[in-house]
Amino acid sequence: MSINEKILLASRPQGMPDKSNFRVQEEPLPVPQAGQSLVRTLYISVDPYIRGRLSDAKSYAEPYKVGEVIKSGTVGQVMESTDPKYKPGDIVAGAWGWQRYAAVDTSTLRKVDTSLAPITTALGVLGMTGLTAYFGLLDIGQPKEGETVVVSGAAGAVGMVVGQIAKLKGARVVGIAGSDEKNTYLKEQLGFDATVNYRTEPDLKAALAKACPNGVDVYFDNVGGEVSDAVISLINKNARIPICGQIALYNLEKPDQGPRIQSLLLTNTALMKGFLVGDYSKEYPKAMAELAKWISEDQIQYAENIVDGFEHTVEAFLGLFSGDNLGKQLVHVSEVMK
Amino acid sequence: MSINEKILLASRPQGMPDKSNFRVQEEPLPVPQAGQSLVRTLYISVDPYIRGRLSDAKSYAEPYKVGEVIKSGTVGQVMESTDPKYKPGDIVAGAWGWQRYAAVDTSTLRKVDTSLAPITTALGVLGMTGLTAYFGLLDIGQPKEGETVVVSGAAGAVGMVVGQIAKLKGARVVGIAGSDEKNTYLKEQLGFDATVNYRTEPDLKAALAKACPNGVDVYFDNVGGEVSDAVISLINKNARIPICGQIALYNLEKPDQGPRIQSLLLTNTALMKGFLVGDYSKEYPKAMAELAKWISEDQIQYAENIVDGFEHTVEAFLGLFSGDNLGKQLVHVSEVMK
Repeated sequence: MSINEKILLASRPQGMPDKSNFRVQEEPLPVPQAGQSLVRTLYISVDPYIRGRLSDAKSYAEPYKVGEVIKSGTVGQVMESTDPKYKPGDIVAGAWGWQRYAAVDTSTLRKVDTSLAPITTALGVLGMTGLTAYFGLLDIGQPKEGETVVVSGAAGAVGMVVGQIAKLKGARVVGIAGSDEKNTYLKEQLGFDATVNYRTEPDLKAALAKACPNGVDVYFDNVGGEVSDAVISLINKNARIPICGQIALYNLEKPDQGPRIQSLLLTNTALMKGFLVGDYSKEYPKAMAELAKWISEDQIQYAENIVDGFEHTVEAFLGLFSGDNLGKQLVHVSEVMK
Repeated sequence: MSINEKILLASRPQGMPDKSNFRVQEEPLPVPQAGQSLVRTLYISVDPYIRGRLSDAKSYAEPYKVGEVIKSGTVGQVMESTDPKYKPGDIVAGAWGWQRYAAVDTSTLRKVDTSLAPITTALGVLGMTGLTAYFGLLDIGQPKEGETVVVSGAAGAVGMVVGQIAKLKGARVVGIAGSDEKNTYLKEQLGFDATVNYRTEPDLKAALAKACPNGVDVYFDNVGGEVSDAVISLINKNARIPICGQIALYNLEKPDQGPRIQSLLLTNTALMKGFLVGDYSKEYPKAMAELAKWISEDQIQYAENIVDGFEHTVEAFLGLFSGDNLGKQLVHVSEVMK
């Protein structure tokens, strides 16, 4: 296979994206320049935040340009390298995105230690996903023993790590997810104390109040919208609300309306903060070491939902918005070569 | 005068309170018990937060009971005392509220040093008002030189101190108030860089954008509602939003609706936090010393709006919600006796 395939942004979506917003382009294999490695993609991570970058609205990350390859987390194998620190055969993580091959500046790569855990964890629990959960929960949420931590998008890649770290810190953990299967998994496999199915509960606030008899001390918000309105109505004095994602809102064409929350934050002297994992890049090594330890001790489990075949990348991405995935959504592109 | 008069909560208001929610009761002068002083009220502070305590909804302070005297900041003069630390003639600040006389536990009093500044400042810039501005702005807002600080309710007692401290820290300060007279005062007397009249601007967001060409780094929120929606739409990366009050909402009968703000907090990795000055009580002495220094150096000015006569206390309180007051709203009850 000496032809590269890339998935480009064809047009900006209005509302929910569909396949017509993307197109595949074939190109000759790129040639690594000085300081670059040629990598063959093994796995692609598809993530909700990508939706934001498809639009040209001001956001925390630069919008993709129309005609540009979609960038997201990727792991691959080095095929050629002009940088002696990276050798053919090395497994590396980076963000070259939705393409089979790429010539990548080695300054943007990190080596994956395949002795620690499976390769795919470099895109999940031992990658940006795990770090996002770690910093948002521990730096902003700061759960204390006996407190109640609620996490929305609980069966997503970030949410399930959040819940497990909160359990390690001695909190009562309540997960919100959109199917009974997911909620059973959260309770039986991951030890969540209670769960709420936001799709089937006729009175979400009542269901949450029942699941949180002592109120809510930390709300790790992955979703926004009415789910968040209901959780925030239950916060306790000095609650902390890390805002990690707002997947309920990403595909809306205009700002959504809801109850203003400032009075609740005021009367509870509560804190709400948006964050990006990149704000914590100096602290990655310490966090990675702690996450790796928890995984090796089986204190944190993870789930992956792997779609096979580069040609299914767009579908895998679109599936995130129907709430089908349990855990980290990945696309398997090619096999490791020995 | 050997009869005490007290203003009691007669009934809980629905929506905007009116005079019928209060009643005056006459009683014999109280007799100070062990550890108490008998104080004669000199000035009463009427404040927006009192509105919250008239309702029985969960809030940051206990609701007043029906039939109970309305408590708020007060200064008075000691007439009799069983505690030798307080002598007849001493000027003291406390929170015995809307009554001409009270027997008060001396543990809830502090002496007012009348050599520092006029007595009334103990209820304003050298009291809870000044401390509220100080901690909300400096602990949560943390303005840096060259940043833009927006304050709503800017001509209120807290707002005008916030703006002046922000100027001392080198920020560009934009005030939002409800009359041209107030805004002229903020600019010409207090050195605000720009002001916006939220009542007369046909497009509030456009007016704010013009007043904040570099966006908003700190928004000190005293008001809530649509004014806050407009300011928050202009926040910069890493903005900080101390929530001090929500006067626009206090008299609403149901939660108001507005654009959900979490996406803006997320994409700007911004922080929003409700706070109460009481959270900082351990740091009062340091803050009071700094505020007193700024006042003595004329670096902070203050404005007071003093209504004369205990019988006008309820009117003075209700006037807060029509936005008439410039600076601290006080009621003058009696003269200092030499």
